[in-house]
Parts: sequence; structure tokens; C-alpha cells
Amino acid sequence: MGAPILVDNADLAVKTLGVCRIDSPLLPLLGERPTTQHYIDESDKVLYDDTALMISSRGVALDDLPGFEPAGPRRKIYFDPSKTRVGIVTCGGLCPGLNNVIRGLVLELTSHYRVRRIFGFRNGYQGFIARYGHDVVDLTPESVANIDEDGGTILGSSRGQQDPAEIVDCLSRMNINILFVIGGDGTLRGAGQIAREAETRGEKIAVVGIPKTIDNDIPYIDQSFGFQTAFGKAAESIRVAHAEATSAPGGLGVVRLMGRHSGFIACYATLAKSNADVVLIPELPFKLEGDGGLLNYVRRRVAERGHAVVVVAEGAGQELVVGQPESTDASGNRKLHDIGPELSRRIKEYFDAEGIELNLKYIDPSYVIRSVPANPYDSVYTIRLAHAAVHAAMSGRTEMVVGRWRRRFIHIPIPLAISQRNQVDPAGDLWMSVLEATGQPPRFE
Amino acid sequence: MGAPILVDNADLAVKTLGVCRIDSPLLPLLGERPTTQHYIDESDKVLYDDTALMISSRGVALDDLPGFEPAGPRRKIYFDPSKTRVGIVTCGGLCPGLNNVIRGLVLELTSHYRVRRIFGFRNGYQGFIARYGHDVVDLTPESVANIDEDGGTILGSSRGQQDPAEIVDCLSRMNINILFVIGGDGTLRGAGQIAREAETRGEKIAVVGIPKTIDNDIPYIDQSFGFQTAFGKAAESIRVAHAEATSAPGGLGVVRLMGRHSGFIACYATLAKSNADVVLIPELPFKLEGDGGLLNYVRRRVAERGHAVVVVAEGAGQELVVGQPESTDASGNRKLHDIGPELSRRIKEYFDAEGIELNLKYIDPSYVIRSVPANPYDSVYTIRLAHAAVHAAMSGRTEMVVGRWRRRFIHIPIPLAISQRNQVDPAGDLWMSVLEATGQPPRFE
Amino acid sequence: MGAPILVDNADLAVKTLGVCRIDSPLLPLLGERPTTQHYIDESDKVLYDDTALMISSRGVALDDLPGFEPAGPRRKIYFDPSKTRVGIVTCGGLCPGLNNVIRGLVLELTSHYRVRRIFGFRNGYQGFIARYGHDVVDLTPESVANIDEDGGTILGSSRGQQDPAEIVDCLSRMNINILFVIGGDGTLRGAGQIAREAETRGEKIAVVGIPKTIDNDIPYIDQSFGFQTAFGKAAESIRVAHAEATSAPGGLGVVRLMGRHSGFIACYATLAKSNADVVLIPELPFKLEGDGGLLNYVRRRVAERGHAVVVVAEGAGQELVVGQPESTDASGNRKLHDIGPELSRRIKEYFDAEGIELNLKYIDPSYVIRSVPANPYDSVYTIRLAHAAVHAAMSGRTEMVVGRWRRRFIHIPIPLAISQRNQVDPAGDLWMSVLEATGQPPRFE
Amino acid sequence: MGAPILVDNADLAVKTLGVCRIDSPLLPLLGERPTTQHYIDESDKVLYDDTALMISSRGVALDDLPGFEPAGPRRKIYFDPSKTRVGIVTCGGLCPGLNNVIRGLVLELTSHYRVRRIFGFRNGYQGFIARYGHDVVDLTPESVANIDEDGGTILGSSRGQQDPAEIVDCLSRMNINILFVIGGDGTLRGAGQIAREAETRGEKIAVVGIPKTIDNDIPYIDQSFGFQTAFGKAAESIRVAHAEATSAPGGLGVVRLMGRHSGFIACYATLAKSNADVVLIPELPFKLEGDGGLLNYVRRRVAERGHAVVVVAEGAGQELVVGQPESTDASGNRKLHDIGPELSRRIKEYFDAEGIELNLKYIDPSYVIRSVPANPYDSVYTIRLAHAAVHAAMSGRTEMVVGRWRRRFIHIPIPLAISQRNQVDPAGDLWMSVLEATGQPPRFE
Repeated sequence: MGAPILVDNADLAVKTLGVCRIDSPLLPLLGERPTTQHYIDESDKVLYDDTALMISSRGVALDDLPGFEPAGPRRKIYFDPSKTRVGIVTCGGLCPGLNNVIRGLVLELTSHYRVRRIFGFRNGYQGFIARYGHDVVDLTPESVANIDEDGGTILGSSRGQQDPAEIVDCLSRMNINILFVIGGDGTLRGAGQIAREAETRGEKIAVVGIPKTIDNDIPYIDQSFGFQTAFGKAAESIRVAHAEATSAPGGLGVVRLMGRHSGFIACYATLAKSNADVVLIPELPFKLEGDGGLLNYVRRRVAERGHAVVVVAEGAGQELVVGQPESTDASGNRKLHDIGPELSRRIKEYFDAEGIELNLKYIDPSYVIRSVPANPYDSVYTIRLAHAAVHAAMSGRTEMVVGRWRRRFIHIPIPLAISQRNQVDPAGDLWMSVLEATGQPPRFE
Repeated sequence: MGAPILVDNADLAVKTLGVCRIDSPLLPLLGERPTTQHYIDESDKVLYDDTALMISSRGVALDDLPGFEPAGPRRKIYFDPSKTRVGIVTCGGLCPGLNNVIRGLVLELTSHYRVRRIFGFRNGYQGFIARYGHDVVDLTPESVANIDEDGGTILGSSRGQQDPAEIVDCLSRMNINILFVIGGDGTLRGAGQIAREAETRGEKIAVVGIPKTIDNDIPYIDQSFGFQTAFGKAAESIRVAHAEATSAPGGLGVVRLMGRHSGFIACYATLAKSNADVVLIPELPFKLEGDGGLLNYVRRRVAERGHAVVVVAEGAGQELVVGQPESTDASGNRKLHDIGPELSRRIKEYFDAEGIELNLKYIDPSYVIRSVPANPYDSVYTIRLAHAAVHAAMSGRTEMVVGRWRRRFIHIPIPLAISQRNQVDPAGDLWMSVLEATGQPPRFE
Repeated sequence: MGAPILVDNADLAVKTLGVCRIDSPLLPLLGERPTTQHYIDESDKVLYDDTALMISSRGVALDDLPGFEPAGPRRKIYFDPSKTRVGIVTCGGLCPGLNNVIRGLVLELTSHYRVRRIFGFRNGYQGFIARYGHDVVDLTPESVANIDEDGGTILGSSRGQQDPAEIVDCLSRMNINILFVIGGDGTLRGAGQIAREAETRGEKIAVVGIPKTIDNDIPYIDQSFGFQTAFGKAAESIRVAHAEATSAPGGLGVVRLMGRHSGFIACYATLAKSNADVVLIPELPFKLEGDGGLLNYVRRRVAERGHAVVVVAEGAGQELVVGQPESTDASGNRKLHDIGPELSRRIKEYFDAEGIELNLKYIDPSYVIRSVPANPYDSVYTIRLAHAAVHAAMSGRTEMVVGRWRRRFIHIPIPLAISQRNQVDPAGDLWMSVLEATGQPPRFE
Repeated sequence: MGAPILVDNADLAVKTLGVCRIDSPLLPLLGERPTTQHYIDESDKVLYDDTALMISSRGVALDDLPGFEPAGPRRKIYFDPSKTRVGIVTCGGLCPGLNNVIRGLVLELTSHYRVRRIFGFRNGYQGFIARYGHDVVDLTPESVANIDEDGGTILGSSRGQQDPAEIVDCLSRMNINILFVIGGDGTLRGAGQIAREAETRGEKIAVVGIPKTIDNDIPYIDQSFGFQTAFGKAAESIRVAHAEATSAPGGLGVVRLMGRHSGFIACYATLAKSNADVVLIPELPFKLEGDGGLLNYVRRRVAERGHAVVVVAEGAGQELVVGQPESTDASGNRKLHDIGPELSRRIKEYFDAEGIELNLKYIDPSYVIRSVPANPYDSVYTIRLAHAAVHAAMSGRTEMVVGRWRRRFIHIPIPLAISQRNQVDPAGDLWMSVLEATGQPPRFE
């Protein structure tokens, strides 16, 4: 979770387009009961607690503690459903559950709020820009009924930003009141720009994000959707690597998993099936050479057991890949050096130099992990996220994302959601459990 | 989560056998780093936050807020590993992940603390009582290596209490210092009695529980182990019921799921695959007859769509099953009337009386749900729970259980852990999402 | 495969509506190559070899050996695709792969033969009879694109016959030229009557069956579709029963599987996961009482191992269920006595009388087995069966079914296909392997 | 199945070490019933029928038709079980089901024939040669009980031959009477040499092979073990490729599957989930350039649908990879050029030159396919193969393999088993079904 961060209520405040005056069409569903607890009161608050906070703010009164706005339906909403037109777009890399989110948004908008027009924009932000020539898709309850059976996104996706002004032109021209953006931090940054561009023009467009990150690295979110599906599939690859490694003399399986800046998938996949001998994550630099280095450790492990499995997150050991030019991808992310092949090369050279037999099998299951349908947990999670996002948008929230914090669904302002990354804490109990499960030393140094 | 509960720090205090003086053998693994954050300091605290608390305790200073003791390794431990003898027992109904917990305990005790003798007691608390004649099993890293591939428990289980005095006699005779008890609330009540009996006798025996409940109804625990596996399998049954219902004229699938007092499995399984038309849970009484009753609603649904699926938790609608004698099972739990067959009978009578064709398929997947191997998420969760339990026991904690609260692993005193039940909040967002997904009315009345 | 059967070429001859004169639209796809082996020549023949035949017919010349007509496309077809109207109906109990067959028929008819109108009749033979009021469904490539993701049948099904004259009236009124009937032996008997009724009237209607039997008991067919999916799911239940049985003192799992007259599912599921101690099939009567009886054997097994698993096919041990009235179901099948509960009751009584602890768990996974989507093998098999059925119908074959014999797709006249049942040979290698895997005695007597 | 092959009974004759004189210990199991059909009579014969044969040999009497020796237990056996010592070795590439075969051999040898000593040789033929230093593993019912849960082989494997004389030295020194060899055609060639070397020396060593080929290319065998598991996993990759391709503008998935000389996996995986637009197999050369070439076809497909999926077997299009040096691997197999990356490169160049957007995702799931545990079908098949192999060896057969031909288990002399390859018939119904499912043209030329 990284170092303690100072957050105050100003950071946590969510923008809204205006005062909610319209009765929610959910009223008949939820009933006019005495408690009416189904509705979120506008003054509710989810406490932002953190160990750091607990330690640092002794003596502070509860009223002043920072808190998130809880997600959920409001009794009064901002948009008149019968006149509301909605857009949905998916951006960036694939992640299990994208279709589930689209489906959840469409079903909730239509069946509960009776929204009639929902447009799917194709291939990420390109879909708003005329020159790409992508068609716009009408989304209906029928057309999305079974899309959760498939991985990927029925809307297509693309990386990279487009001009916020052009996007707002498009939204304005199509009279769209609400835009749901499903994407990672670059995408959400773009969503923030769109929201502010609309605000500047005086357009009442609610821009609501559903954060997508297979790496589980978005802050203030317990676990990002698709993450459980992803590490479950990743665990299969570790199992395969183990079968390969044990089936040949000097067998070594090297499994490269996702994780640009955060090693969550590598850690969880390893714990799901304790077949790995070493896990390497971006949060912890490691040395290859020397007595305490990785190469020597792998050599000893293969000698003792006849085989070994190394799991490496894509962003680990960047400092080891030297001499390759720096570059960025269309989303503006710095292109990582591919540690997997490089690591395999170095291990081969080392075993070769030592004259030890090595049967290295390199496994990169990335597409399989990101393109499978959501598992039951992520199916539930995405539908609940989608419900939360619809309620937020209908009540006029904008420039925010929905998330789950300490197991409650909340609203997070976009600037806060992209302010940092969630990472594996090298001093926390997750990494501790990994060390205990693999038996590897705390550092290769 | 039910009504706000008043908890103070006295309730949250965990018993310990004495002062920790022995250096943890994990030291070489975790290293003597400046921060040494891997170790939990004895004064650390996980804030017990709750919406109720937030609202009720305005003005209270943070120091005085109730907090749980965090789980994790201590720098100094209570038991000398080389002399420690450990017992493990599994009690009550089956649940996915039992073997994973056993395996996690054994691997952590042996590979990190270097404990040498671990005994498995067979068939629940019966295993301590000579007259049952069950043998004791030696548990080693080799014998547990692959047990997580199978459902059930390699130790066997049984329901019901045994005399705490006889159990402590057995532990004492075998020089056992630590007893891990895996079971539900009845079992944990027994574990508390064992701990207190040992305390009374001055025996230094740490009794540490790992709470098991497939119903996810243990308080102060985010989600009980096996729950995700369970609702994932349960969702398959709903899908099957849907296939059956859509494949016959007047098709109606009735799926009976676990859930004695809490409808979590029914709610989550329904959200995982939105094929159900009605979900019935113990938390919400319902009427069968009348315009607003369930029978009329099911009739209309079948008439409109040609088919319907009803999901019913075993503890739902107890008030409808009249005229059957009350009884209790060996664990002392009140025996529930079986709502599934009763509900099916009532629906058949109703359709018959109305002269409408009905093809009712009744599905009770209980054994399949509780006896499958853990899924990847539960595999990770159980290994982390087992690590936490071992650290707690080695540091001398007793009469407590490990759990996860707001995503942090914590220690909970047994009396608190069995003080109430976790239930679906009929005014909360989970039930709200179920209503939105099924389209059913908030009440059948 | 039962006793040797005398078959001659008269039995194997397939009826055809007339001479094929129209060029197949597949010509451009398959090309006019010198060999043109893609097309089946009208005089091709698949030898009907059988051990019995090999032994009995020594001295017979090859020309006279009985042979099946091979399935596959013909160069000349009977129906003009542009004018052909097709009906599809599914009848009887569910079986994995029904939707795959429907999908395969529709895709092949439309994409290759360019047939434009395909009608789905709802709920079995009821769908042709006006008074049931079922609608007729238009089937298009779009509407069937993803139906193979789901179990069951999108057309619905029902048991029982309807008047063939009324059915032909309906077909005639709708100008339907080809009727595909997917169903078991009762259904195929009905299909034969429909074909003959049409023939009598001089209507040129091709009636082609795709045999469905989850029990794998149709003769002259290597393996019926859905069978592999079914026994794979059934094996999961045996595994669950094993987990249950091993997790309690005196644990006994009783798994009731499909198999009215043939124990194939029970045998294959047992071999797939050798957890069963006893398998009981309809082909082999067994005694309960006495030294060599089942009860004594189960008692010894539980005593020796602490647990046991019994797998029983629904049609086994019918002679043991006495005093229950005889009846038949809507399909005219004799209703079987339910051996599962009866067997469980007898075992409980016996253990009770012997004063031995018993924890019997009874598992009946029928719906789960029959209503799951097809596995990859059955997906391939059903698509190939559907292709074969379409080719047969377009070339004017009628009153026949498609099947696979010795791994080649063939045409089988309906009278032959329903003339007997495929059963487990108690003297064959399948049963031998079961005996070797379970260790059970060859007879309980 | 390729061109008709002339086979006569001399080719089909299986070698045996001598006359069987010892009563089989299976007698008590199988009983002395009047028919005793459980035992295979030494003169039984499975007719070798083939379309080619049917056509060419009209007029031939049945007695003279070629036939295989049926597999199964013999009443009299050759080896005295109490004195028999057995070796098992696995060679070559991994394949699902290897551990199942090992487990089936050990369980059958020990539980039914009461053989007491079984040795596992490690890492293929290396395991017999002292200088590699591999240990020999004792195989017992306990040690193999659960190995079928894992992919790979617990014995390890390696490619390449070793000196038959050295191997027989080893067998002789260890008094081994029976050697089971699990491997592909190179391995079986080696097994034949071992058998003949033993024969030359007068050593009574039965060498029995269980043919392993994930490509399903061994002749006279309906389907090789592991093949169904393999194409089922391969189908998942095609589904993933489809999700990727549909989720990006100009999306193209390229899936490289196994299949050095035979495209069975590619064909079956494609039929299992009809998401592929093009399948390329080694049996059918294809052109890239030109109007009828692959590149133009893919371009049109992407233009029309927005995406496409190409499935390519590793041995396809070898003629396209020019300018790379020829080489062989340790097994003596000619090293194939890797068509996957080459094809991807050519497609990229072409789209680039045409100025069309392309998002190509290349998926090579080889390790995942070959290293997963066997599915239920292959679990059954491997156990039955293992039973057949044990019966063959105990009755003194040597220099042969077990297989299944027209659904009966048979004995095949090694020279015949390695005489040719099973291939997809470009004029047969499997390829026809692929063409119909993908809609691709019969040739790219």
C-alpha cells in the first residue's frame, strides 16, 4: 500500500452537475418504508481509514476525518430518464469483465431508470472521432443479454488519447448526457479532461469512470474487476510450468505474468498454487550475479530438487535490461523492456557457463489471462460496480469513478484515482505470505 | 450487516498465554532491516470502523476508538518451536478449502517455525475421545503436499460437542501445546471451552480457531473461506435450472441453496449469472398466497416468459412449514424444516389448481457445492489465514480466531466471533443489486 | 454389444424420395478436382463388420457382406435449395449438445445449401399440433450463433407421441420439405410413422433423425452425442461422493447416475476417476443379502477403508424394488422404480441392524449432467452429425438417421436404429476394466 | 487416412516370447463361467477393414482377410507374476495422460497380477545409461495414487535415442522381464531395437509400447491418448484469439497449434468452437500471394467483418519459410521452421504495404496444451490402454504396441506402427466439415 499518504476531505469531494430534484424511478421498487435505507443520504460518508492515518492522527475528532461519498441510489436524481441519452466506451488493454460492465450498465439503465437510448462508441476514444470511421452501436437489453459469456469487449478498444474538444463536440452533437468510460489511468485522465471541457462549455454531461486495471494497481480500490479471473488463469500457467519443469532433466519453467508496476497477479497466482520457487515483482529490485543473486539461487534450487519455476512480473528487473532505447506506447505509457526473454537468456548463459544441463520452458500467457470471460466473483463484482456507476451518473456526479473501499462501494474523484499506484508492500503480509510459500530469500542481493 | 452494535476495546482484547521471549525463527527470512515492518508490533491496532460507529461516536478521539489486534508474525514468540507439539482438528459440515487450511498450517509450522510434531485428530472432536477409537494421524509436509487438490477434509469431521475436560486430558497426555480448530460457531464455542478448561488447569495450551462457514455468516470477517468457491458452483446450478426451465412448456426450476440464517450464497450465485427470477432468503419473510404473494408472481412470470427460476436458501420461509416437530442436530443447531420440497409442493398444488401446465425441476446441489476443491481465490485466502493462525498461536494467543476485517488479517476473541451472525442487509446494496438483477418485488406480501 | 445379430443388406438399405438431379451448391466450394473424393458416390458402402460376423461368416465373399450407406455430400441432390423449407424439432429428455445440433443444421443449411426458411417447432411433437398453442420459431444464422454456449434446447422439448397424420397435415400446410427430428428411440419411432404417413399421401417430405440418448444405448452408433460431456460431469459427482465419504466416520457415498437399460455412463464415469468401490448396472442383476451380496461387501469395504462409494445406474436392480405398481411415462417408456433411494434405505437398515456407524450421502446429479453445455468433443461431434444429416436430407433420404459406425459417418434406416439397444457387455473389455479399477467381484450373488 | 495401403497378415503378426503356460491370477476375479468370454482366445482376430480394402478385395474369402490380434487378458500367461520385475519409461515431448498411463500400469500390475517390483526409469532412455546419473524410482500403488491430477510425467522425459545394447545391459543387470515404453514414433523405433537386441541375446524381455502422439498421427489407432484433452485446450486459445481480434480495429488473431505433419488438433479445435476464419494444415500447401492467396483472403475477411482468426498448425507452409538452415532435434526429427512467427511477419508486411490498420495478436499455447492433466475421456482411455498393455506383456508379447482400431483394443507390431503417419484426408469428411465451418476456400492458390 506504499507510504502513508495525506488525504483530506477536499481531495475526496466529488463533483456534481447540480441539485437533484427528480424523483428516482426506483421508488416503486424500493418502497416508501420508514427507514428507506436503500437510498443513500447525500450526507453519508465512508470513513477513509488507514493504518498510517490511525497512527498519525491521534487526537483528531471523528467529524474531521476524511471520508468518501458512498455509492448507491439517491431518492432524488439529476437527469430525467425519459430524456437521457447515454454513451459507453471501453479503452486500453483487455481485462476480464469488460462485457459484464457494459451489460450491467445497459440493463440497469433500461430496466430500472427506463433510459431509452444508449450508444456504444467503438474502439476506445477513436469512436468519437469522425475520421476513424467507426460506427456507433445501439445497445439494448437484447443485444447485451449474453455478452458476458465472452471475453474481450464487444465495443472494441484502442490505446491512446484523442482531443477532448472533439470528443465533447461529438457528445454534444449526439445530445449525450452521460458518458461511461471504462479504462485504466491514462483513459481516466482523458475522461477527466472530457468532463472539464464539458464543464467549461457549460454542457451538462456527467462523465463517470469504471476503473479497469488487470494489474490491480488503482488506489482506493480494494480489488479491480477482472483481477481474480486473471490470477486464477495465471495460476494455471504456473501449474503448467511446474509440469514442464518436473518432466525434464534440469527443468526450469519461466512464467512471465502481467504487472507493469505492481506484482499483485504474480503474488496471488503463486499463492493459489504453491508450485513456484521464485517470484519477481516490480516493487523489489533484484540482482542476478553473485552469491546472493538470482542466478545462483536458481542453480541451487535446480540442483537440489531437479527443477524450478520462476514467476516474473513484466515490470520486474527493468534495471537489468540495458542498452535498449526508451519509448512510449499509444497510451503514453513508457514501454517496458521485456524482462521475460531477457531473464531467460541470462539464465541460459549462466547454466551454459557452469556446464549444467538446463531445459528452460518460457511461458507467456498474457492473452489467455486478459481475454477469458469473467469468473463468478468478477461477474458479481462487475454487475455491482455497474449499478453503482449508473446511480452516480443519474444523480449528476461527474469527473469521478466508482470503486470499492473496505468493502463498501464509493465515489472517488478522478484526480485522486489517478494520483498514485497501488503496489505490493514489501513489508506487508501479502509479500510475507509469498516468501513463506516459495521459501525464497527476502532479497536477491 | 444488521443493526449497529456497540463494541468496545474490552470486547476486542485477545487473550495470550504470557510474555513472548523467544526470537522468531523467521528472523533470518525477514531480515534485520531498519524498518522491520514485516513484524507486527504488539501495540498495533486495526480500527474497528463501521458506518454506525461513524455516525454515533462523533467527537470521540481516535485513541479511544475500538480496534482489533492485527494478525502477523511477532519478533518474539511464546513457544519454543523445537519443543512445540501441535494438534489440528476439523469439525462440522464440509466447506471448500478445509484441506487447504490443514496444508497451510502444516507447511508454515514446519518450514518456517521448524515445528516437528503435528497431529491430526480424526472426525472432529470425536478424535480426542478414546471410546470412538479413531486413530491419530501424523501430519508432515509430504503427507499434505497435494491434499488441496481434493474437496472434503483428510481428517474427517463430525458434528457435536465432546466434554472439554476429556479433550484437555487428551491434549495434556499428548503434550500438545497448540490446538488449531477449524469449524463453525458451535465448534468455536467448544474451542472456547477447551481454552478455558486448559487455563483453569494452568495448562499452557493455545487454542486458535479458523472460522468455517459456507454461509458466510460469521461476524467481523469480510468473507469466510470457501464462500467464493461455493457460490461459484451454486451459480452453475442456477444455469442448469435455467436450461431445464427453458426446455419444457411451463418450465420452472427451483434451486435450493445453502443458507440457514443468511442468504449470501443465494444472492451472490444469482448475481453471478442473472438467470434467476426470484431469490428467497432467510432474512426476508415472504407470503405465498394473495395478489402480492410468491405463487401469483411465479405464475405471471411463467405466463409471460414461458419459464422461470426460483432460488431459495434453505433457511428461508421457515414460517411456511408448519406442523412439523422441532428438533436439533448433533451440533445443537435447530433442525430447519426443508423449505425446498415444501415450496415445490405448494407451487405444484397452485399451478394444478389453476389448471396451468407446470414442469418443475427441483435441484439441490448441496453436496456438490460444499465438497469441491477450493478455487484459486480461496486457495490464496486459506493459505494466508493459515499463516495468520500459525503466527497467532506461536506468539501465545489463545481463545481467539483469525479473520479478515476491511481487508486486513486480525485476531478476534472467540466470544465476540460467536456473538451474532452476519446477515444480508435488506436495506443494503447487495440486496438492492439482487432486486435490480432479478426484477423481483422488494417484498412478497 | 450383446449377442451376435443377423443383419443383411435389406435391413441396411436406406429409403430415398427419388432420383437426385440437381447440382449441389457445394460444387464451387469443393471444386471439380480429378478425384472429387469429397463427394460420396451413390454406390459407396461402409462394411458392417462385427466379431460375431467374423466368426460366423467364414467363406462368405466380400461382395455379399452387409454394409451401411456412407454419409456425406452428394454431387447431385434431390431438393432445390432455393425452394426448400425445413423444420426442426427436439423431443424427449435433455442431453448435452441439443443446441449444437440445431445450430449445426441451421448454419449448414443456410451457408452452404443457401436454404432460406427454417422453422423451429416448440416443445417436441406438441409443436405441430395447433391445440397446444406453441408458436413456431424462425431459425436464422444470427439467432443460433451462440446457442451452443447453453445447455438444454432453445426449442423446448416434451415427451410423448402425437398423431402422425396431424403432424403431416401441419408440415404439408407449411410446405415443409425436410423435417429434422432430434430424439431418442420413442421419438424416432414417431419419426418413422411421420415419414410413412407422408409417403402414403405422396408428399415428398424427407424425415431425417439425429439420434439422442444420453445413455449411449442406440445400436450401430459408436457413441451418441452428449455422452462424453455427460460422463465427464458424472465423474465430478463421484469425486464429490468420495470427498464426502472420506470426511466422516462410516462415510458412504451413493451416486445415482442415468442409465435406464445400459450402464455406460456409470462405467465410464467410474473409470474417469477411480474413486468408486462398486458399480451397479442394469445389465447385471445383483443380490443384496448373503455373504456374496452387496450389503456385506459394502460393510467390509467401509470397515477396511473407513469409507466407500457406490455408483448405481438408475435401471439397475429393478428386481429389488418390489411391491410398487407398474406404470409408463408420456413417452411410453416403462417407468423405472427409483433404485437410488431404495438402495440407500436398504443399506441404512443393514448397517443399523449390524450396529455400525454409517454416514450415507446420496447424490443424484441428473439435471446437472443432462443440462450442461457440450464439451469440446461433443461440440465437434454434433457439428459433424449435423452436416451429415443435412447432406442426407438434401439428397432426398428419408426415414433414416445419421450415425457413426467404426468412426465413419453413415445412414441407418429408422427400423434398424430402434430394433435393439446397445448395452455394456458383461463379458467385454469395458466391464473388465471397471472390475479391475474398482476391485469389486464380478457378481454379487 | 491417406492412400490405400496393402497390408497382409504377415505384417499384422505379433511376436511373442513363447508359449503361455501359467494360469492367470485374474481367474478368481473373472470366474470360471461357461462362456468365459472375458478371456481373449489366442486365435481371435479383429478384422482389418478399410474402404480401400473393401473396394479392392472383392471376391476374397473372409478367412484370408487381414486381422489384428485383439488385446485383453489371456487365460494362460507367460510370466510368473511373483518373479516378474517391470520397468517403465516415458520419452519424447509431453502429452496429457502420461501420468495416467503410468498409474494404470502400476495399479493393474500390482492389484491384479500381484507383480511386486516396478521400476520407473527417469528422463527417457537416458534413465538406463549410468553416465547420466539419474536415479531409478520405485513405483508402488501408493506413490502413483494421485499422479493423474497433474500434467507432465513424474518420471521425466528426454528426447533422443540411447544405445540399445547399453539399455539391454541395464535391464539384464536389474533382472527386468517387462519394459513398458511410452513414446512417439522415434521412441517406438528405439523400443523395437531394444526388443531385437534382447531377442538376439536370448533374454526373455517383453518390450511393449504405449504410443504417444499429441498430433494423433499414429496409424492403426483411432485416436491417440491426450488428443481430446489437447484439442479441447486448443479450442480455448481460438476463443481467446477471437476475443482479442474482435476487441480492436483491424483485429487479427493468429493461433499456432501443434501438428508437425498432421493437422488434426487444428481441425478439431476449430470445429469445437467455430470462431476461426482460416485453418492451415501441413497436409495442404497454400500460397500467400495472389488473388487466391491467403493474404488477400485475410485482408478481405478483416475488411468485411472487422476482424479474423487464423489457425495454423506448426508444420503447415514449410515451403514458405526459405533460407533457413535444415537441422534435426535430439530425437532425430527434422526441425521444422516455425511457421507461426513467419506467417505473422508476412501478414504484417502485407497489411502495411496496403496501408490497412492491423492489430495482430499471436498466440502459441503449446505448453498449456501438452502439460495439462487428462480430461475425463482421456482418463478412461489411458486406463484401458494401460490394462491392455499389461495383459499383452504378461502373456509374453513383445516388440508391439497396444492401440484401438475401430473401437476395439488391439496389438500392433512395432514395425507396422511406425511405418507411416495418420494424416487429415483433404478429400475426407473431417476436412470437409472444417471448410463448411470456416467458410474458407478449399485451396489458397
